[in-house]
Amino acid sequence: MALAPLAHALFTRHLRHDPADPRWPDRDRFVLSIGHASMLLYGALHLSGYDLSLDDLRQFRQRGSRAPGHPEPWVTPGVEMVTGPLGQGVANAVGMALAERMLAARFNQPGHTIVDHRTWALAGDGDMMEGVAGEAASLAGHLRLGRLTVFYDDNRISLEGSTRLHFSEDVGTRFAAYGWQVLRLFDVADAAAIDEAVSDAAADADRPTLVIVHTHIGVGSPVVDTAAAHGAPLGETGAASAREALGWAHRPFEIPGTVYDHWRQGVSARARAHTEWRAAMDRYRTAHPDLAAEHERVQSGRLPDGWQQAVPRFEAGTRVATRRASGQALNALAGAVPELVGGAADLAPSTLTYLHGHDDVGPRRFAGRNVHFGVREHAMGAMLNGMAAHGGLRVYGATFFVFSDYLRPAIRLAALQRLPVVYVFTHDSIGLGEDGPTHQPVEHLASLRAIPGLRVVRPADANETAQAWAQALDHRGPTALVLSRQALPVLDSDLVDVSAGAAVLAPGVDAAIVATGSEVEVALAAAEALRDEGIGARVVSLPSWEVFAEQDEAVRHRVLPPGIPSVAVEAASALGWRDLVDEVVGLSRFGASGPATVLYTEMGITPEAVADRVRHLLARVQAPQGDGEPKGNTT
Amino acid sequence: MALAPLAHALFTRHLRHDPADPRWPDRDRFVLSIGHASMLLYGALHLSGYDLSLDDLRQFRQRGSRAPGHPEPWVTPGVEMVTGPLGQGVANAVGMALAERMLAARFNQPGHTIVDHRTWALAGDGDMMEGVAGEAASLAGHLRLGRLTVFYDDNRISLEGSTRLHFSEDVGTRFAAYGWQVLRLFDVADAAAIDEAVSDAAADADRPTLVIVHTHIGVGSPVVDTAAAHGAPLGETGAASAREALGWAHRPFEIPGTVYDHWRQGVSARARAHTEWRAAMDRYRTAHPDLAAEHERVQSGRLPDGWQQAVPRFEAGTRVATRRASGQALNALAGAVPELVGGAADLAPSTLTYLHGHDDVGPRRFAGRNVHFGVREHAMGAMLNGMAAHGGLRVYGATFFVFSDYLRPAIRLAALQRLPVVYVFTHDSIGLGEDGPTHQPVEHLASLRAIPGLRVVRPADANETAQAWAQALDHRGPTALVLSRQALPVLDSDLVDVSAGAAVLAPGVDAAIVATGSEVEVALAAAEALRDEGIGARVVSLPSWEVFAEQDEAVRHRVLPPGIPSVAVEAASALGWRDLVDEVVGLSRFGASGPATVLYTEMGITPEAVADRVRHLLARVQAPQGDGEPKGNTT
Repeated sequence: MALAPLAHALFTRHLRHDPADPRWPDRDRFVLSIGHASMLLYGALHLSGYDLSLDDLRQFRQRGSRAPGHPEPWVTPGVEMVTGPLGQGVANAVGMALAERMLAARFNQPGHTIVDHRTWALAGDGDMMEGVAGEAASLAGHLRLGRLTVFYDDNRISLEGSTRLHFSEDVGTRFAAYGWQVLRLFDVADAAAIDEAVSDAAADADRPTLVIVHTHIGVGSPVVDTAAAHGAPLGETGAASAREALGWAHRPFEIPGTVYDHWRQGVSARARAHTEWRAAMDRYRTAHPDLAAEHERVQSGRLPDGWQQAVPRFEAGTRVATRRASGQALNALAGAVPELVGGAADLAPSTLTYLHGHDDVGPRRFAGRNVHFGVREHAMGAMLNGMAAHGGLRVYGATFFVFSDYLRPAIRLAALQRLPVVYVFTHDSIGLGEDGPTHQPVEHLASLRAIPGLRVVRPADANETAQAWAQALDHRGPTALVLSRQALPVLDSDLVDVSAGAAVLAPGVDAAIVATGSEVEVALAAAEALRDEGIGARVVSLPSWEVFAEQDEAVRHRVLPPGIPSVAVEAASALGWRDLVDEVVGLSRFGASGPATVLYTEMGITPEAVADRVRHLLARVQAPQGDGEPKGNTT
Repeated sequence: MALAPLAHALFTRHLRHDPADPRWPDRDRFVLSIGHASMLLYGALHLSGYDLSLDDLRQFRQRGSRAPGHPEPWVTPGVEMVTGPLGQGVANAVGMALAERMLAARFNQPGHTIVDHRTWALAGDGDMMEGVAGEAASLAGHLRLGRLTVFYDDNRISLEGSTRLHFSEDVGTRFAAYGWQVLRLFDVADAAAIDEAVSDAAADADRPTLVIVHTHIGVGSPVVDTAAAHGAPLGETGAASAREALGWAHRPFEIPGTVYDHWRQGVSARARAHTEWRAAMDRYRTAHPDLAAEHERVQSGRLPDGWQQAVPRFEAGTRVATRRASGQALNALAGAVPELVGGAADLAPSTLTYLHGHDDVGPRRFAGRNVHFGVREHAMGAMLNGMAAHGGLRVYGATFFVFSDYLRPAIRLAALQRLPVVYVFTHDSIGLGEDGPTHQPVEHLASLRAIPGLRVVRPADANETAQAWAQALDHRGPTALVLSRQALPVLDSDLVDVSAGAAVLAPGVDAAIVATGSEVEVALAAAEALRDEGIGARVVSLPSWEVFAEQDEAVRHRVLPPGIPSVAVEAASALGWRDLVDEVVGLSRFGASGPATVLYTEMGITPEAVADRVRHLLARVQAPQGDGEPKGNTT
């Protein structure tokens, strides 16, 4: 409630937006980082004339309403981002502000400024405490993202009570240390002061701006300035007393026509910028027809014609780390897909994700394609979400696979929103060796596979890796590429095919050995040993469970015929494999510091162990036990 | 290499430590947050006389060496914490410094200062960029942890090259904004300047101190001041040239006796404090025998005699949310276990984790037991690790289950180190309702179950919850308690038994229905419907997969007999359940905003769906198909 005057000022006097076209590319982006205050946003959208009815507001938080508990862009026109998990929205906004500058550097021409919008975020104490917001703010200051303005609602009340319990730092000084302009607004109801702050924010083209807004939570209500105002309903009497205190002589959900008139008058003035932009685009189209067509293309999300021809093929017979194949595929695809940009959390040289021949993105320099996120995995994840949601760019971010945990909250939100983000996670198992258990992922494949809507792809060789990159770019949702540090044999590119999520690499009908990534080599060796004994074990590379699950049953059964004994091998937690196979050779412990070959042997990820398991299964099939086999035979 | 003079100064002139007893409770704690510089620590430990041989150093990063790639306390005497994932060590150190102050407030008496040590951390640029370190630094400043000193190695070089690429903030000003004293050391080889900084840090009892150390990475080597100095080996010629530049006329691993003499002389002076402390403890034991015995007990990790009697029992027939039962059990146990302390990431009122009748921990006030972590989940996780590793306290931390993702990197490290931390994760499924998919965990059970060494416990009712709390306190490793927001029926306390990880709640031998948490109610209803049809379906509550897996096969088969058709039901990702049962009623999508009952019906987590699945399985058993049943029948 306290922030209503600010929302009013922004939506009617400052935001560049047009409710008739919520997807207008050059609109300002507004991110409600305090997602639990969703009703503030819904109210502003409704009054502004977005397609969100009073009935939706009445059905707040009910199934089927366009006013869900936290903002959901696919449900509510005018909502830019899913928010709620604190800190994310601030970092999303940093990503959006960066995307705007990068697109401006690509498309604006002398006399033609067609990318010209600002990014706004509304944050709270919780956002200021979350590390992800601090990481992103540091990078925003470094990059000098002057078109970003964050309003920080400093109400000094958190869920547990006064922020004095746990939060006494000087936020303004901290943001100044990041390189931000810091302003203060002492009375949020002072319209002139808001306008002045916005004007000062716009005047500083070189620094992002934090406006610290001193408010009183639940103002006008009986719970003003208390933690109870956070989520607990006011109740009928509370709401009535708030109405009286605020001098609001109307019943619930009764909005006088004069209020609508006033809002819509302001909004229609704001929307005039859209008409002007259309005219500017017409002039641009005449002066720069190719760029205009390109702008339209990248905004639509369509990739350039013939981009797939850039996917490289690797010759069988050599050994190439899949991270290295990824680096080559990425660079080749970047040549064909100019909107492909990204970077690493200070690990570009190890993840091999640098785009060679392209500039770095840096302070005031946005024409490049290599973003240096610094050792800020979480901000990278949340900024990628903001960049992807902004539109006009295709983005990737890289780190070691074990550190996917650091950005996991952002990965989840990419999956929930189906944002086309590509994660490049290298150093994918105990195969990385000497760095030891802190750097060796064990549980990460299973834990990412558990996220609905996320594609996890662990290619077995250079050709699968190149195909997986193409598949990821062709997908309207997030993809995690899981890649090896160590060299792996390059397979026959005619056999390799990731389009169904799985492919048969060696024939056989007596048994099936299923593997991913570096363990496909182990599976092939096991199958060879079995072949010498007359056992025909087919080898299936299954880089993506999610893509495989999307296939028709006939396709799945062609790859993995039902009824034949099957063993999976993966140097990772076995969790989930029993949906697909009978037994699993996996890991149920952390790794260790030592050479990879020593670790594979010590931990039993060997062709011998896999072959033994196949022999054991075949023996059981030939002499079945009467009382049923106990479950849980995974290691 | 650049930091060698600092390590020398600390280990020989400032740290309170005794290599003869690396576990002395009143030793200073030293955390190498830059874990990749492990050789710096190993060198200092070896020269100081810890049980770490030159042979171990020669076998650096090899399997079986006491000098693994990153520090591992169970491998190397004198190592306090696993470090490597950046940012964690700084937050671990904040937790240790807090534990020291809390123990001092409990045990020190006028004239008897038996808890009197300091905490030191060595951090790098990466640590300063990671959000978790910023979160913890903010709380350290708030709490005025004056006995904490962090040296920040400001070498302006990250893995990608110059930190100018992505890091231009003013770190000193940022830490001053957090409430820290900030000092600068311009020449790390200037012993007097180091001593002065340490002395200034000690003089400010009220503020933690950040010492910004300006160094040159790889000093003396050919790769000085470049990113190549980070991890790439110098090679023989590089090492030789470094030796020459540093005026070090000795072969590799040849250490002159004078160097040992010099180090050990310094260290033995430092260890004198241990002798004095033993004498002080003798006096304390005489003056305060009860406190001395209590001090010894908490340091040993032994719980008080008879503590189990505090576990509450709940009467069947009512409905109680498991988060509420947890709050009661926690408070009851806190009465019997004085070392039990903890708090929430600003969600104590929702997670019900406040210890009533006990004080808050706050600035300069450490006698309380309620820690307010603020909206800083990740710092909470890493601080809990530091507190647990420090010893003397049993710790817990709470937030919503969906936000377990925020502290996941710290949970992993707790599991790797077997630290006895209890996580209280409430609001555990779509059952939380209206807050919608951002707040509804779906993948979190599977993703935590995938972490080796972590116990995940999702109790079905108030009595399982109370027992689970006791089980967690009795366990020398981390436990995640996963609890409901909504009320659940209280089961007969004679039936409930979590000691084997699973128990039979309703008999039956025709089929088994396995469930956890709120879905046990669904399973019981399904079994009842089947009973009316003459099908005896046993109901198994399986709160902890990990505890169940630890049982003998006989125990497991008694609970879940092999060979009978089995169905699991859990309002979460089905990943992993097929290790235990034939089919799963679960979720493969995100939740939604709406009332819990609507969501359960819409998403098919109902007694009818479970009963149908049992009927289907029984029909299949009665008419088996010849060609084998395809796998993957999970929803």
